[in-house]
Amino acid sequence: MKKRLNIVKVGGQVVEDDASLNTLLGSFCSIEGSKILVTGGGRTATKIAADMGVESLMVNGRRITDEPMLKIVTMVYAGLVNKNIVAQLQARRINALGLTGADLNLIRAHRRPVTPEGIDFGCVGDVDDADGQRLLSLLTDGITPVIAPLTHDGQGNLLNTNADTVAQTVAAELAHNQEPAGTALQRLNVTLTFCFELPGVLRDPADPTTLIPCINEADFQTLVSNGIIAGGMIPKLQNAFAALRAGVAAVRITNIHNLQGGTIIKP
Amino acid sequence: MKKRLNIVKVGGQVVEDDASLNTLLGSFCSIEGSKILVTGGGRTATKIAADMGVESLMVNGRRITDEPMLKIVTMVYAGLVNKNIVAQLQARRINALGLTGADLNLIRAHRRPVTPEGIDFGCVGDVDDADGQRLLSLLTDGITPVIAPLTHDGQGNLLNTNADTVAQTVAAELAHNQEPAGTALQRLNVTLTFCFELPGVLRDPADPTTLIPCINEADFQTLVSNGIIAGGMIPKLQNAFAALRAGVAAVRITNIHNLQGGTIIKP
Repeated sequence: MKKRLNIVKVGGQVVEDDASLNTLLGSFCSIEGSKILVTGGGRTATKIAADMGVESLMVNGRRITDEPMLKIVTMVYAGLVNKNIVAQLQARRINALGLTGADLNLIRAHRRPVTPEGIDFGCVGDVDDADGQRLLSLLTDGITPVIAPLTHDGQGNLLNTNADTVAQTVAAELAHNQEPAGTALQRLNVTLTFCFELPGVLRDPADPTTLIPCINEADFQTLVSNGIIAGGMIPKLQNAFAALRAGVAAVRITNIHNLQGGTIIKP
Repeated sequence: MKKRLNIVKVGGQVVEDDASLNTLLGSFCSIEGSKILVTGGGRTATKIAADMGVESLMVNGRRITDEPMLKIVTMVYAGLVNKNIVAQLQARRINALGLTGADLNLIRAHRRPVTPEGIDFGCVGDVDDADGQRLLSLLTDGITPVIAPLTHDGQGNLLNTNADTVAQTVAAELAHNQEPAGTALQRLNVTLTFCFELPGVLRDPADPTTLIPCINEADFQTLVSNGIIAGGMIPKLQNAFAALRAGVAAVRITNIHNLQGGTIIKP
């Protein structure tokens, strides 16, 4: 049997609210064995920016990370949010280690180029690669990484990075990692869990009892044709299948109450 | 020959200024072998508190860390300052890992009790112990810890903690650590370096050419009797001798330009 690893990604709004963070950490701690938590950005950064008189720049509905905003997301994501989660996991006897992509040179990225339309997203990183070996060695030591959505360019610059991308990169890297034959590490079975507001993929988004427990790529095509999966759920599932193609064993879509339930996406 | 470890503590004002941080990191990287950087708090936290409308409470000239201030020091010390140093050390090919005392359950503390005079310092931690074994294993893996002056109480709470105390605790713990006979770790020779504004202990504080290169406890008594060492330098050296009694091989007092120079304090 393959050794299991669970990678859980939650949005910023979950980790910035005491009650929902508490629910999340309870669910997260109940996962047996190796696990990694990846946290998204959120409203606290926008609120603190406003308190400090830093304008949140948006272009075509997308956030621009200028230098003052990079400082704020570094403070909030890597400081306030990350270290509070670490302290609370320690209180629950999980040996957590808070990380950004700069720590241990874990996730390397480059600054996103100016788009053909002339949009400069600023200090935003597109991921190049992650050090799966280092993460494996932390996991083998019984450590639970808690990863903030920041990477670095190897030139001394931190970069604001999409947390879904961070979670997917780390999952794919760990699923792919080739260890010498016969070691436990070779046989890593990675489940990537995306937490959102609903209990999973629902036939009727208004009715939580219509949860679809398992979807493969053929099911997905049928459900899209029938109009049951529509709107923002389509790219979410496309991303899930991309992760599966990258070697992840299963992708789960669920909410914070049941990290081991929800809808499981399989190849 | 004993394996060497250098632990360098710098104040917040150094790490919050780009030019002095650059000088510090250049000096720090030129130290060969295992090293740890401990950073102090500083003015950025006070400035950001003011920007956010959080009052810096002082009682008898000493800062009180209430809940809003704890959030700010967590953002600044563990986020902004720590992760920028980590990214810049990575750019200099030092495999840095930013840590608080909560990460890896590294430094445990308790909230300081209300003083007999009725002063409640708030979310301030007095250190109980540090995990020297874990730090040793990071160092053995070629990792350079960068430690922010925050600890935790094991109940989910972060605590603001004096950076000199953090540096001394870590140094004493690593100097004391007893490994099985014959391993390299048993023979750790720890130098603890305190960076301040002067190049070391000077016979004439106004004249940097009057540096005293080495002081032992007998020299110290003489220099105090002669009035050459006076004022704030007395407790600084008393702390240094306390560290030596705790097993640290040498304490250095210097500035950021010359971490391997300055005044060396020996038993």
